[in-house]
Amino acid sequence: MTGAPVAGAPMAGTPLFRRVALIGLGLIGGSLALAMRRHGLAGRLVGADHNPDHVSQALALGLVDEAGTDAAAAVQGCDLIVLATPVGTLVGLAEAIAPHCAPGAIVSDVGSVKELVVREVGPRLPSGVHLVPAHPIAGTEHSGPTAGFAELFEGRWCILTPAPDTDPEAVARVGHLWRQVGSMVEIMEAGHHDRVLAITSHLPHLIAYTIVDTAVGLEESTQSEVIKFSASGFRDFTRIAASDPVMWRDIFLNNREAVLDILQRFTEDLTALQRAIRRGEGDILQDVFTRTRRIRREIIDARQA
Amino acid sequence: MTGAPVAGAPMAGTPLFRRVALIGLGLIGGSLALAMRRHGLAGRLVGADHNPDHVSQALALGLVDEAGTDAAAAVQGCDLIVLATPVGTLVGLAEAIAPHCAPGAIVSDVGSVKELVVREVGPRLPSGVHLVPAHPIAGTEHSGPTAGFAELFEGRWCILTPAPDTDPEAVARVGHLWRQVGSMVEIMEAGHHDRVLAITSHLPHLIAYTIVDTAVGLEESTQSEVIKFSASGFRDFTRIAASDPVMWRDIFLNNREAVLDILQRFTEDLTALQRAIRRGEGDILQDVFTRTRRIRREIIDARQA
Repeated sequence: MTGAPVAGAPMAGTPLFRRVALIGLGLIGGSLALAMRRHGLAGRLVGADHNPDHVSQALALGLVDEAGTDAAAAVQGCDLIVLATPVGTLVGLAEAIAPHCAPGAIVSDVGSVKELVVREVGPRLPSGVHLVPAHPIAGTEHSGPTAGFAELFEGRWCILTPAPDTDPEAVARVGHLWRQVGSMVEIMEAGHHDRVLAITSHLPHLIAYTIVDTAVGLEESTQSEVIKFSASGFRDFTRIAASDPVMWRDIFLNNREAVLDILQRFTEDLTALQRAIRRGEGDILQDVFTRTRRIRREIIDARQA
Repeated sequence: MTGAPVAGAPMAGTPLFRRVALIGLGLIGGSLALAMRRHGLAGRLVGADHNPDHVSQALALGLVDEAGTDAAAAVQGCDLIVLATPVGTLVGLAEAIAPHCAPGAIVSDVGSVKELVVREVGPRLPSGVHLVPAHPIAGTEHSGPTAGFAELFEGRWCILTPAPDTDPEAVARVGHLWRQVGSMVEIMEAGHHDRVLAITSHLPHLIAYTIVDTAVGLEESTQSEVIKFSASGFRDFTRIAASDPVMWRDIFLNNREAVLDILQRFTEDLTALQRAIRRGEGDILQDVFTRTRRIRREIIDARQA
């Protein structure tokens, strides 16, 4: 071997983690299992899911080596524990697994809200167990173990939000894991993460859910035409509005302040456009529609399109 | 030849239209020119655009056989005249071309608002000239003659909204044109079209423009992170919000009542979700997020996904 050692990387021939518990075997947990297996990152993969159907599906698909419905049992002897369940379950899960975490174990998660994890999960874990919250910005509108695929994280960002006093070696190992499965890793303060995601992800989902629900509220005959002619714009919202309902309920309940703040700004901006339409103020409309074009070009330049 | 003659179809060996004027050489006009050429639907294609750069680009790209900036000159001797300019220009254009339309000519358009066309354009045309308004539900976020491509209309809907007393032969010929370039044709009352498109297209565009503008209003540092992490939902809105500003200004100004009505329903639905988030009413959120999933499945079933 040549070159300097990579931070967080294991010795040659040794997997990055000896025994990994994946709590939650849905789209993200299942995909992470497949990706860790493909890249040889785990000696043994143990799964847990409160839904027995997910457990049998995960075993049948070979996502994990062993699995059950008991998270506390699954984490025993693991050097990495990843919580991949809706954020509303994380505090309860932390309490359930805390007495069973091995000393020195790393606990991580994949949730879309991070301040809650640092504030509520961290203090519930025993000292000597390292919390490194993570948010892989990846997903599809499909859910469950059968939706998982090993390439889900390739070329996508994964944001880590460790508390300032977290063991740097634990942070480096989690960062190495995500880079190995193909992601680009960014480290960010948890509250800042939640404010950025409120605009890039949470508000867009709330708006998409709303507009599709507005269509659901129309009379039956119009609804069938909405579906028929959905390619004219509406369709792009329905994909987002087909995302997992429980996961998204928990995101809104647990990133309340940041979501309500950005929603207030959005409503003000929408009201200004509504007023311009009602008063026939074409210049105002054209100005807004012209400046929003620039953002698309910047996203294309940043290769995120 | 075998089989019954197709309504609106010409005799074998004759193009569907002898001489076609395309007023407006942007994405839609340019694509229609290319598609008509590919399918041999026009003997000669004449273009006009108020922008001299578009005229030279259209000639250089071979979209049309001749072109200039004068719409009145272009329509002379044509049996089909297609207005492919922002809907705010249609009334003025109708007045400009009316004295120059050949008897029996068909005038059509491609605008996203149709009640205006029936109400304001029809009465301005000489008797004996047939108005068949059309709305091809196709487009991209790109604009101008260079954005055109012959396949744009394939597999997409085109809605015709003729007044009840329109010559059926003229309607059939326009319907035949759109089927020949690959579209599925639907005939609809103009006011109904405008209400259906207000929810499927106009409101989604308004919302997308708004959310992107809300992001534009954030401080610079947050903006760059919005672009970086846009794949988490925001990105899907930026494509729509990069659509042509003048075209969209005119749509909102000319479908005001239907847009304001559906926007009011949307705002009520959004306010209900906002209230549920503030009060922590997870059941309400989950109910909405569950019923919106159904619409996505119906769109997939209708092969519009």
